[in-house]
Amino acid sequence: MISSVSNAQIKEIQKLQKSVRERRKKNLFVVEGEKLAEEAAVHGQLEKLYLSETALQRESGRLQRLVAKQEYEVVSDAVFSALSETVTPQGVLGLVRIPFYPLDFVLSKAERGVLLLDNLRDPGNLGTIVRTAEGAGMAGVVLSRESVDLFNPKTVRATMGAVFRVPFFYAEDFIAVIEDLKEAGVPVYGTMMQGSVLYHQADFTKGAGIVIGNEANGISESVAKALSGTVRIPMEGELESLNAAVSAAILMYEAARQRRCGK
Amino acid sequence: MISSVSNAQIKEIQKLQKSVRERRKKNLFVVEGEKLAEEAAVHGQLEKLYLSETALQRESGRLQRLVAKQEYEVVSDAVFSALSETVTPQGVLGLVRIPFYPLDFVLSKAERGVLLLDNLRDPGNLGTIVRTAEGAGMAGVVLSRESVDLFNPKTVRATMGAVFRVPFFYAEDFIAVIEDLKEAGVPVYGTMMQGSVLYHQADFTKGAGIVIGNEANGISESVAKALSGTVRIPMEGELESLNAAVSAAILMYEAARQRRCGK
Repeated sequence: MISSVSNAQIKEIQKLQKSVRERRKKNLFVVEGEKLAEEAAVHGQLEKLYLSETALQRESGRLQRLVAKQEYEVVSDAVFSALSETVTPQGVLGLVRIPFYPLDFVLSKAERGVLLLDNLRDPGNLGTIVRTAEGAGMAGVVLSRESVDLFNPKTVRATMGAVFRVPFFYAEDFIAVIEDLKEAGVPVYGTMMQGSVLYHQADFTKGAGIVIGNEANGISESVAKALSGTVRIPMEGELESLNAAVSAAILMYEAARQRRCGK
Repeated sequence: MISSVSNAQIKEIQKLQKSVRERRKKNLFVVEGEKLAEEAAVHGQLEKLYLSETALQRESGRLQRLVAKQEYEVVSDAVFSALSETVTPQGVLGLVRIPFYPLDFVLSKAERGVLLLDNLRDPGNLGTIVRTAEGAGMAGVVLSRESVDLFNPKTVRATMGAVFRVPFFYAEDFIAVIEDLKEAGVPVYGTMMQGSVLYHQADFTKGAGIVIGNEANGISESVAKALSGTVRIPMEGELESLNAAVSAAILMYEAARQRRCGK
């Protein structure tokens, strides 16, 4: 049993929770809770399981299934509390391999819509967006390289498991991805305050790229130039903008509605 | 200048930030930043302004307009940091009066849609929902009494100022409000996984109440019984639910689209 916070494994977990560089170097991220650990196992991505003393004694079918198949390490309750980022820790933590999806794979079902995130910065927003992307049936998510990390613990929690199911790609050259989509006959729309048509006037029935910009500054100028067109979500009152996850949801669900019912 | 954290005013501000009971007792809440303080002043709700030493020396037109008209107190930078809940404090904090809107007023424009929140618990979700409600042009928001407080500092920040502009009402008897709406000829729809029609098949053109349930448990049974009908947002993949603020946004913007374009 690990009973010291200075244990090397504990220190490594903490590094992985805090640092995107460490996550990318080791190709690992951290999940908490039975549900996410099981999801990681189902996807063959669970590398190692850590259980608190108390969790080990819990009568949980899900946990027993996990422990039967998975290498695990027991951690004292005190050390587990130091690791946990939740208010009421379940005593279950997993080290999970970060999957890799080739860009071609992410774009191969572009008729279902591809979400493109231009410098999105808020971890909670990103998690909510990926969760909504799964619900709306999008093909995948492409992120500009300076966007927030999908494997930030806060983001992972906010995805509610969608992080294991939605294909993603961090693009070194974000604009090249937009050009690829357009060459394949898929229009790429960006949401902007000054968008030229209302969002439901755009045609999403043949697939679409949907670009969502940075929370404070919107879509960057160079990205805006590459778009097929711009759309706007009308706003009443005196608001300057909608929340990025809300804008993304409105667009993705309009695209889904059009795929289902026609324009 | 206030230079001690044990000053009575400082202690009172901290109480107001932390405790919903204190906010309700004093009928006050706390905002941070020039923009929200100015907004409070414009609405005649700003009771008192606190500025850090550094903020007082800043050349800001907005701040100078505020200071010209408003009673203010200077706080040492160290004390201000202890008060601030933001990462990069602007050194501007306001004590703001909580407005009261009669229920009749909130319901009087129900043809624009009224959002009804049944035991919503997450402060960030509530703030995002109120922000979206303004953008979608809703008449107002009715909250069941056990819902999270609109004047929680995290909620206030997430509204991006909409907290000053969207009428709201905390209902002791939430179901009675639903009955009132129905009697006035306004249908009340609840979003549920097992909703009987797709959300865009419901008719929002004559106004509507839109009920959003608790993040974990959805709409409570007694509320569900009172509804005119239930709608569902279709979900692909393996998701159990969408984020409450996302569901609310999809419904509110569908209602706005129908008001603009017909069903």
